[in-house]
Amino acid sequence: MSTHDVTETAPGWLPADELGHIRERVPIVYVEAVPVRLDHLGQVTHVGLLLRVRPDGTVSRAVVSGRVLHGETVREALWRHLTKDLGADSDPKVPPSLAPFTVAEYFPDPDRTGFHDPRQHAVALCYVVAVDGECTPAQDALEFRWLSVADALKPEVAGEMSGGHDRLVRLAAAHVQRLP
Amino acid sequence: MSTHDVTETAPGWLPADELGHIRERVPIVYVEAVPVRLDHLGQVTHVGLLLRVRPDGTVSRAVVSGRVLHGETVREALWRHLTKDLGADSDPKVPPSLAPFTVAEYFPDPDRTGFHDPRQHAVALCYVVAVDGECTPAQDALEFRWLSVADALKPEVAGEMSGGHDRLVRLAAAHVQRLP
Amino acid sequence: MSTHDVTETAPGWLPADELGHIRERVPIVYVEAVPVRLDHLGQVTHVGLLLRVRPDGTVSRAVVSGRVLHGETVREALWRHLTKDLGADSDPKVPPSLAPFTVAEYFPDPDRTGFHDPRQHAVALCYVVAVDGECTPAQDALEFRWLSVADALKPEVAGEMSGGHDRLVRLAAAHVQRLP
Amino acid sequence: MSTHDVTETAPGWLPADELGHIRERVPIVYVEAVPVRLDHLGQVTHVGLLLRVRPDGTVSRAVVSGRVLHGETVREALWRHLTKDLGADSDPKVPPSLAPFTVAEYFPDPDRTGFHDPRQHAVALCYVVAVDGECTPAQDALEFRWLSVADALKPEVAGEMSGGHDRLVRLAAAHVQRLP
Repeated sequence: MSTHDVTETAPGWLPADELGHIRERVPIVYVEAVPVRLDHLGQVTHVGLLLRVRPDGTVSRAVVSGRVLHGETVREALWRHLTKDLGADSDPKVPPSLAPFTVAEYFPDPDRTGFHDPRQHAVALCYVVAVDGECTPAQDALEFRWLSVADALKPEVAGEMSGGHDRLVRLAAAHVQRLP
Repeated sequence: MSTHDVTETAPGWLPADELGHIRERVPIVYVEAVPVRLDHLGQVTHVGLLLRVRPDGTVSRAVVSGRVLHGETVREALWRHLTKDLGADSDPKVPPSLAPFTVAEYFPDPDRTGFHDPRQHAVALCYVVAVDGECTPAQDALEFRWLSVADALKPEVAGEMSGGHDRLVRLAAAHVQRLP
Repeated sequence: MSTHDVTETAPGWLPADELGHIRERVPIVYVEAVPVRLDHLGQVTHVGLLLRVRPDGTVSRAVVSGRVLHGETVREALWRHLTKDLGADSDPKVPPSLAPFTVAEYFPDPDRTGFHDPRQHAVALCYVVAVDGECTPAQDALEFRWLSVADALKPEVAGEMSGGHDRLVRLAAAHVQRLP
Repeated sequence: MSTHDVTETAPGWLPADELGHIRERVPIVYVEAVPVRLDHLGQVTHVGLLLRVRPDGTVSRAVVSGRVLHGETVREALWRHLTKDLGADSDPKVPPSLAPFTVAEYFPDPDRTGFHDPRQHAVALCYVVAVDGECTPAQDALEFRWLSVADALKPEVAGEMSGGHDRLVRLAAAHVQRLP
């Protein structure tokens, strides 16, 4: 999940200690978006993954993910996180229906649901989002890369995702019928 | 939405002042269930509505709705609220997929989304749930009644629901193709 | 439903008498698309309806609808009918998931399901399709117009649709949470 | 897909040569159901698979699948095929929404979509169906067995399914979040 929370400056922003206090008391609402490229028939050709080189040189990959702030709609949160992570020109196509294709429940206990976040219990509404524009990650340490669906599903790529994001990519691929 | 929160005694329970503090800072996760009776072909024949007679004699109706507690899964929250509101023998059939048919966003501002909760910003995952058993509401002030789909959609019944629950019933009726 | 079948010249094309023979024996596969305009947050702002002035001067409105030909995928059929009815520059965004938001079952008997086609039993996979481009209907007698969601749901507009297309528009509006 | 078509005696029944003629001209509408057992929280615990011992001793497995007849609704077809294949006491819970979780497109060409039927182009509406009752397959050569989700996803079990039914089980498992 996103670790950008401390850099948020929107009205719903919370200081770290306050957020920490709340995280011990209620589940936190998240949105998650699997960015995809589509051909003219709507078929998914590529999956977009954020990546970051860790201090030890290993690569960590993730889908777009972030908190829904107080007073913010799910659509606004999706738009904010997508354009923050993929850049102002990424032109994400937030889907017309709010119904997520799945709900990922993150718990500090990694064995609870298969989705894992050591910091919190989060309930994430998950969407497949077509991204048409140029992606140039605005966020400091993050890069972004388009992978073919086959590559995105490879065990070595899955192994670079944590918290269950690899599984979320598989569920998304199944939803769009690109899982073999 | 449910006002049962203060009577909760599960591990995720919070004192009223603490919950009030949190409600001003983050959106709260809810589940909402439209209880339905199905015929053998899966067609919805009846919609179940909770009702309560207000001190002034007017009737208030609602679908099942309640908070997801810290540490609780969405499925557990659905089961808990359904069996609390409809009784231990109601035998609700929590659906196999976690994907809600819609997401209702409640704001203190009634004009924001059409869903309204004066107490809080809540994000509710909404499900149509088949209920096969005997429904005898366990909760003190609440009664429960099955209405034909046509009756549940009548303006006079809709007028007895608040916060947008009438609209949620229409969205659910459309989802199961029982909206005229 | 579309009456373009006789003008089809693709490989799956069938002469009228042959198609009539088949229509008495098996249900026919259709795709139907409710064209929509979205704002940058994915919210539906307008619904597109085809219209035709009948010989008696009355107006008939419909969503995009047509047969899936033998050997053609659902995506190809959606693309073909959308670009035929809305024009080559309409740029329809066929959605990444093949799962329709509903299935409309058309029967010659108007009381069977509420969807009605005097010619046949048809099973239509129904999609909400964002259309970004310029729409200039290629098809002879048809025009095309964008209506605000509120206008598209008005009784006088609904009254100009037949076979249940008005209901399909309501179901689509509910799916994208634009039904009041 | 089902090969029961020739034994059908319902009004929509067609002699084999007539059906063969039609299969060369239009796609055929099918319903497919992945039978599942749920725990009280709606979580899928088991997947039901039909099986048949072939003359050479090998085992062939499949989900429930069959044609929608002329004049028959999708719900009626689901009920008919489920109770025919799993027995009159199987008590299948046809879901309240007609929207399938996916659409499987079968072509004689095995490379077209990954779903394959040498006899025809079929468009199958696919559902996950909870089955509560006793399953005693009514159909002559078929048996039926409940497998744990983990077993149903094993390569050796997948290898006993043909036409893409193994993939359909994986897509269904993803839909109900039981895919690892």
